[in-house]
Amino acid sequence: MSTYDDRIYLDHSATTPVDPRVLRAMLPYWSDVFGNTESSHSFGQEAAGALERARQTIADVLGCRLSEIVFTGSGTEADNLAIRGTAWAARSVGHGNHIITTPIEHHAVSHTTDQLRDRFGFSVTRVPVDRHGLVDPQVISEAIGPETILVSVVMGNNEIGTVQPMVQIGRICRERGVLFHTDAVQVPGRLPLKVDEMNVDLMALSAHKFYGPKGSGLLYIRRDTRLEPVMTGGEHERGHRAGTVNVAAAVGLATALRLAEDERRDESRRLRSMRDTLIEGILERVPESRLTGHPKLRLTHHASFAFLGVEGESIVQGLDLKGIAASSGAACAEGEAEPSLVLKAMGLPAKWGLGSLRLTLGRSNTEDEVARTLEVLPGIVDRIRTRT
Amino acid sequence: MSTYDDRIYLDHSATTPVDPRVLRAMLPYWSDVFGNTESSHSFGQEAAGALERARQTIADVLGCRLSEIVFTGSGTEADNLAIRGTAWAARSVGHGNHIITTPIEHHAVSHTTDQLRDRFGFSVTRVPVDRHGLVDPQVISEAIGPETILVSVVMGNNEIGTVQPMVQIGRICRERGVLFHTDAVQVPGRLPLKVDEMNVDLMALSAHKFYGPKGSGLLYIRRDTRLEPVMTGGEHERGHRAGTVNVAAAVGLATALRLAEDERRDESRRLRSMRDTLIEGILERVPESRLTGHPKLRLTHHASFAFLGVEGESIVQGLDLKGIAASSGAACAEGEAEPSLVLKAMGLPAKWGLGSLRLTLGRSNTEDEVARTLEVLPGIVDRIRTRT
Repeated sequence: MSTYDDRIYLDHSATTPVDPRVLRAMLPYWSDVFGNTESSHSFGQEAAGALERARQTIADVLGCRLSEIVFTGSGTEADNLAIRGTAWAARSVGHGNHIITTPIEHHAVSHTTDQLRDRFGFSVTRVPVDRHGLVDPQVISEAIGPETILVSVVMGNNEIGTVQPMVQIGRICRERGVLFHTDAVQVPGRLPLKVDEMNVDLMALSAHKFYGPKGSGLLYIRRDTRLEPVMTGGEHERGHRAGTVNVAAAVGLATALRLAEDERRDESRRLRSMRDTLIEGILERVPESRLTGHPKLRLTHHASFAFLGVEGESIVQGLDLKGIAASSGAACAEGEAEPSLVLKAMGLPAKWGLGSLRLTLGRSNTEDEVARTLEVLPGIVDRIRTRT
Repeated sequence: MSTYDDRIYLDHSATTPVDPRVLRAMLPYWSDVFGNTESSHSFGQEAAGALERARQTIADVLGCRLSEIVFTGSGTEADNLAIRGTAWAARSVGHGNHIITTPIEHHAVSHTTDQLRDRFGFSVTRVPVDRHGLVDPQVISEAIGPETILVSVVMGNNEIGTVQPMVQIGRICRERGVLFHTDAVQVPGRLPLKVDEMNVDLMALSAHKFYGPKGSGLLYIRRDTRLEPVMTGGEHERGHRAGTVNVAAAVGLATALRLAEDERRDESRRLRSMRDTLIEGILERVPESRLTGHPKLRLTHHASFAFLGVEGESIVQGLDLKGIAASSGAACAEGEAEPSLVLKAMGLPAKWGLGSLRLTLGRSNTEDEVARTLEVLPGIVDRIRTRT
């Protein structure tokens, strides 16, 4: 695949374009095979058949059963269902009210646990991370108490790229009889995703992060896991998620996941090489710059940086003017630059943490684009520093 | 538009095919203009621009402000947000805990109020309906008490087609300072939808009911209405609904809504005429048959019937074998036919209420198809009656 025009898109962790092969697979399911999967007539049954074939494709990739996959309208919705659904289910049987998570979760997880704590009386522990953003499984083990119902840890962090020790955390949760959920939204096409190897009970994915359509997510739910529905209505998805099933979105997700997995080794190798060129080049050419997140245990497409005394958003704007799309991890509140909570949790001093720069590679990127980015970036940072 | 193949689709209240004009409008927003609307770079801003143009199209049709429209992943989600969101918001300020609704709501409404009652301690009143499924605004007025926070009434019923006196109910709610929500999912293209004329504070729509895509809904939220988010995460949609916005879905909904409104008068007239031919023909040709729902105050495309001692699902199967897609309103629990709750609420005796037959017309249907249905149906009902 080439670039979309002469611009360079380095924001594949924010979203990706739908792969033409995925779009082609989805096309029949809008105007031709359009039935409601709950309808008993032939139009409905055609749609239901396509839905179950999509589910089978996904089950093959994840190594799970058909009945363990619930289609949702987004990765955010999948995280919400996993956390709120297990919390409410536990409460309804008087099972416990304590949730363990980390300070570096996506807002879909952190704001959901915040709401459970502030509005519904749950107790939430955020275990610390080290300076690379790594969670220590032993610390999670120590945080588990008799009231703990759920541990939620992001598998690959969106802001700093760090990949967590899933197998070890999963083993501890299994031994202690606590559910283990992961937001794995950044992972497809980058790492293997076999749910049994990781011991996860719940896992959220989002199609648009791996060249599938927006509005399409899924939650893996290990059999016999109790969840209260958080979206109520019809009995779609075995009562786990009400609302007419979006068959095109499910087919798109399945096709995109199959492609991401099939091309994972080769594409990961290609992206990792470009990522390392970016990291080495930037640390070498930009004074007082540092890599954020783990130097080795990180997503293959993900490079993130902090620059002393520079706001990330200013760099993003400077790059945008040069036709390069990147993102900042900073949380800007009403125009005021505030240090990123993730960088803060890793102990990065505030003067470094005013906003990271995130460059996330993907199928469209080439080595030439990486070279052009390396040419342009040092001057942009320099001009911002001179200006202020 | 012609039929999709030689089959006849009479289930437009379950779902509709995406109109080719809608699909064409959506196409650029998967692989070309694919940015995340929250991204500050040019890819993101192109997507954000398309989203706001879609919002403007919708605001024009509904007669509301841009800021009053929240895109959701389905009509079900919009109903959930309206009801659960206002209930939680009211509770968090100690405002009241009583909800008024009807016994003929879609499950997206009825199961949400059930959950609020059973799990969260809210109190729910279901006001009665008359034998045509009509709600009496005076009865709603009498049910409003000091603890009442919300009235939720389906505008056009999906099972029996009855249209409620929205203006009067809205006026009462306004006078009494109670929020008024309506599930208007069946209405676009059939009745006008100006939110100010109806005095609604909240209104749920679903694109796939009017030739838009599945996975695309919206909630109209009158300014200054307090809602707690029910899907938590990023600050999309002004904090009302987390999750990367599905721009293609929003563009699809806007295009479909504009078309439905522009073609409403002509198409409604065409469908009403075919609907009346169906109603007259069936009541005349099938012994011991009756219309369910209101004979006049009903959705223009909607014909629904009960047949003495016959299960609706059997008729649906018989029609399907003849290539005609219809639906039954019956709630079948574990293979056992149970009377429809909606028909029960209207006082229909159980021997009549084992399942209605619903025939809902749409753009693809022709008078020939109506004639063919009228030819086939009497024999099917007769064979089922003879068999049992």
